[in-house]
Amino acid sequence: MKKRVGKQTVTFETPPTILSAASVVGPKEGEGPLKGKFDLVVEDALHGQDSWEKAESQFVHDGLKLAVEKAGLRIEEIDYILSGDLLNQDSGTIFGVRELKRPFFGLFGACSTMGESMSIGAMLVDGGFASNVLAGASSHFCAAEKQFRFPLDLGAQRPPTATWTVTGQGSVVIGKEGEGPKITMVTTGKIVDMGVTDTMNMGAAMAPAAVDAFVAHFKDTGKTPEAYDCIATGDLGSIGRELVIELMKKEGYDMTKNYTDCGIEIFDAETQDTHAGGSGCACSAVTFCAHFYKQLQSGEIKKMLFMPTGALMSTTTSQQGESIPGIAHLLAIEWGGRESKC
Amino acid sequence: MKKRVGKQTVTFETPPTILSAASVVGPKEGEGPLKGKFDLVVEDALHGQDSWEKAESQFVHDGLKLAVEKAGLRIEEIDYILSGDLLNQDSGTIFGVRELKRPFFGLFGACSTMGESMSIGAMLVDGGFASNVLAGASSHFCAAEKQFRFPLDLGAQRPPTATWTVTGQGSVVIGKEGEGPKITMVTTGKIVDMGVTDTMNMGAAMAPAAVDAFVAHFKDTGKTPEAYDCIATGDLGSIGRELVIELMKKEGYDMTKNYTDCGIEIFDAETQDTHAGGSGCACSAVTFCAHFYKQLQSGEIKKMLFMPTGALMSTTTSQQGESIPGIAHLLAIEWGGRESKC
Repeated sequence: MKKRVGKQTVTFETPPTILSAASVVGPKEGEGPLKGKFDLVVEDALHGQDSWEKAESQFVHDGLKLAVEKAGLRIEEIDYILSGDLLNQDSGTIFGVRELKRPFFGLFGACSTMGESMSIGAMLVDGGFASNVLAGASSHFCAAEKQFRFPLDLGAQRPPTATWTVTGQGSVVIGKEGEGPKITMVTTGKIVDMGVTDTMNMGAAMAPAAVDAFVAHFKDTGKTPEAYDCIATGDLGSIGRELVIELMKKEGYDMTKNYTDCGIEIFDAETQDTHAGGSGCACSAVTFCAHFYKQLQSGEIKKMLFMPTGALMSTTTSQQGESIPGIAHLLAIEWGGRESKC
Repeated sequence: MKKRVGKQTVTFETPPTILSAASVVGPKEGEGPLKGKFDLVVEDALHGQDSWEKAESQFVHDGLKLAVEKAGLRIEEIDYILSGDLLNQDSGTIFGVRELKRPFFGLFGACSTMGESMSIGAMLVDGGFASNVLAGASSHFCAAEKQFRFPLDLGAQRPPTATWTVTGQGSVVIGKEGEGPKITMVTTGKIVDMGVTDTMNMGAAMAPAAVDAFVAHFKDTGKTPEAYDCIATGDLGSIGRELVIELMKKEGYDMTKNYTDCGIEIFDAETQDTHAGGSGCACSAVTFCAHFYKQLQSGEIKKMLFMPTGALMSTTTSQQGESIPGIAHLLAIEWGGRESKC
């Protein structure tokens, strides 16, 4: 068990390499603070399809293929595809992966899915079961609103605590060999449910799960937040981030210096009317691929914690009065700063 | 890469052990051909809850805990829980796992989920990332009918090709050490879609995916169906089974001697009015746990192929005219026939 550290953390003997990272987003994302960093900005969120769900599948298909191309591989060299989304029965993913004809594991971790796909992917590579895996996650604002909240045409008012589901797909190729940022550790989260029932305040619902995984990681490894140049949660937004800082302070950790959230990075809340920030599986996926991965490649950051966060509710469970369980999966990613070839 | 064999198959150097298997089912399953083999038969399919969805979560909770108890472990000794179901956003699983407070990976493979959870679980154990994992899958007839087809109260007529979703939860503890049936190989399936659109004939939709995974396994390993005492697919039912036999014959493999389907084993189609057979994630999960696992323990069978099969559609994709993609995940499980202590 030499690969395990503490109770929830795995440390890799031969850290797998993130060989490439690709991001495909919708028009709103393309106009935000990360403008110019995405691989592909689709001008029409329907992306040539006749439904929002089919559009999401097109994003998935394009994003996964692009990550393989950027890694300089052929799709046949991918041993497993690991991916998921928010739609019922993972349909954004299923119909996007269908044509790729590779061994496939469908995942559901709500907006934590990119953390789950990268964590399992890294373990399959380090365990010797795969040379290359393709790990991704997607979401689509219009498909998510239709499924989880209100029809867009209704023009329902959104409270300030609400977040905005990111339209896009982010994916990485994780390989046994090659140059690039390395996944050095993963800390897999538990479901944490503190009884929040407000589906318009998912940052608050997920924050305790994020804190639980952070504390597990720091206790398992003996490290503190200062050990990393950058710490990024997935889609807690501005309200969830504040809660994490406050709750972590009670646990004895100072998160004020180097901690951000992908939901804060991807949109300009004031000019883009996104309220508490971005959310959805694609929020952390595309922000990592377009932004943090490049910062790791350039040496701007050398060590980071990336922690996609998920709110595990469905409309049925919310209608039946259930609270919103949260989960968060943490990855430590490091790179000496050498320019990667990808 | 010595652990990989051929294109889609992993063979384990130190085959992980299935330390225990637990099954919790509803009343109809408890009256079928496997009567007396289940660990727990719940007399009321609501299982003390006030909705079918909450009932499924209760099955999940009870089944997972029971598997841990049967393995002689405490829940704290489980490094990962891997599980999934058919409900939107995996909610049967999420709310059933919530109280167990262990690192959790949610999966979606439709009715192939038990194959997915056991495959990833075996790799996490063999890769050295876990000592013990808990792998499961669940479904509930009433929750599935409500979500995918018609309200039960409508009394809609079912065509002869239709299958009956199994109510229950099956789970196994897979461990690094201990005695019991071993997972020796896994062959992970690709999504295969031959254009079937009839959601009342899922056996036909899934059969090509099952054949694709069987052929991959036999080509990768150089084995033939005769190498195994028993081969069991997940929930193809009587129609899907016939299709597999026919399609496999075209590929040059004789499946007539030792091949059954869990959907045929779990119900008596004639007296239980289940038409083509059982289906749902729980179909293969509980049939393996209650029936095949015991046959492996007693030595009645020594080598088997277990292959849960999944139909990856959602109501939205079907309503939008999409066909039904299928997938199948195969595990080779062997045991010398020595009585296990579980």
